[in-house]
Amino acid sequence: MPIDEKDFIKLNYTGKVKSTGDVFDTTYEEVADEAGIKNENKDYKPMVLAVGSSQLIPKLHEEIKNLEVGDKATVEIPAEDAFGKRDPSLIQLIPMKEFKKQGIKPFVGMPISAQGTPGIVRTIDGGRVRVDFNHELAGKDIEYELEIVETIEDDAEKIRGLLEVYYGNPNLDLEKTEIIIDGEVAKIILDKLAGFEQRTVQEVTLSKFRVSREIYENMEEIKKVQFIDEFEEPEPEEEDVDTEEVPEKLADDE
Amino acid sequence: MPIDEKDFIKLNYTGKVKSTGDVFDTTYEEVADEAGIKNENKDYKPMVLAVGSSQLIPKLHEEIKNLEVGDKATVEIPAEDAFGKRDPSLIQLIPMKEFKKQGIKPFVGMPISAQGTPGIVRTIDGGRVRVDFNHELAGKDIEYELEIVETIEDDAEKIRGLLEVYYGNPNLDLEKTEIIIDGEVAKIILDKLAGFEQRTVQEVTLSKFRVSREIYENMEEIKKVQFIDEFEEPEPEEEDVDTEEVPEKLADDE
Repeated sequence: MPIDEKDFIKLNYTGKVKSTGDVFDTTYEEVADEAGIKNENKDYKPMVLAVGSSQLIPKLHEEIKNLEVGDKATVEIPAEDAFGKRDPSLIQLIPMKEFKKQGIKPFVGMPISAQGTPGIVRTIDGGRVRVDFNHELAGKDIEYELEIVETIEDDAEKIRGLLEVYYGNPNLDLEKTEIIIDGEVAKIILDKLAGFEQRTVQEVTLSKFRVSREIYENMEEIKKVQFIDEFEEPEPEEEDVDTEEVPEKLADDE
Repeated sequence: MPIDEKDFIKLNYTGKVKSTGDVFDTTYEEVADEAGIKNENKDYKPMVLAVGSSQLIPKLHEEIKNLEVGDKATVEIPAEDAFGKRDPSLIQLIPMKEFKKQGIKPFVGMPISAQGTPGIVRTIDGGRVRVDFNHELAGKDIEYELEIVETIEDDAEKIRGLLEVYYGNPNLDLEKTEIIIDGEVAKIILDKLAGFEQRTVQEVTLSKFRVSREIYENMEEIKKVQFIDEFEEPEPEEEDVDTEEVPEKLADDE
């Protein structure tokens, strides 16, 4: 049965630079290992994808719709649809004395970071250092090898998959995340650990927005997504704990 | 009618150091102004308080229970029940050279901060600087002048008051915060702006916990509090916006 526009699938993929065959991303642990890009913190397994996602590169979208569960395929993506063309304005000449000030001795190929943007030293010419702030895959045609593993039927499982891809907290225990579909509303009660992360609220709101957009764009029946933090009254204890509490001032309103 | 254990009240207060009469906190704008502690960002108005709150100093609790709406009273709080006794181990001798390293020239009375803890320079003796990290009100008996303004009957208004005191985001628009009491569950759908603050999730979780504790400890019928972030599918637009979207790579899982 071919993949449908409205399906959620699990797929494996390997992304390569077309000209060199260099692997830059993969869901297969052994491929990552072989390519020397294995991340010990990453859980290598098939990724959940909404086939109709507006975030998907159109060519990938078209290709996947022609496949069936179990199929493999290779899709070529030109640079402009992948990581973008190279932007000459992102190559900057920086005076050598700026590096000296910070006690850095630049060399060709040295990775550096300017206000969080990664760059790489391309050339050193007398007093000037040419630094390239383009994405390292910018300007490169890439290809993805795809393998459709299965389709997902269960709504809660679809949402767990989207949380895994878009929520951005690898410590989240999705088994402890309760998902309730209540008519047009998807209610997500996250694992309690989600409340203790160090990202700012604004960063997490962006993640929640991305998960929500994938849900209401790709799950026809859902119009609203709620992320719920729950705080429950603890069961009363035997002993009277009141007397052990240290009173605060009138009201700590900071 | 006297104030009851289970009441929520609005009260005005002024906190003073007993020995000097120095005002350190107040809900009256003109008192703050006169004392030179007026904060332009603070909204001076009566504060909401759960009379039965376990966070309240017991002596304040007892005193408030003897009052009625409209009453005024002054309550003395000994240092150990207010900001604590002075702790000699919080007075530290720091070599002058540590200050010099950071280009700081200390003077007696200078406020400093070490890893976020505020302190004050007490003495400078040759190469040693004595810095006091005790709270500036530690060791001081204080007194609160209280005025009971009214009691609050409406559950949503009680919760809005607790959010104002304990949530810790002064930019929150409480008029835009929806509060639904659903049996034993209080549902709080915060103003959308709450999603854009720069505190970490962990800090805000602590604030949510404090609000929740005040709710389920002091509102008998509530056993569970939910903080809900909602994301709704936007109404479809006339034009087809799909073609204007810039596709991302296969899946941006960062």
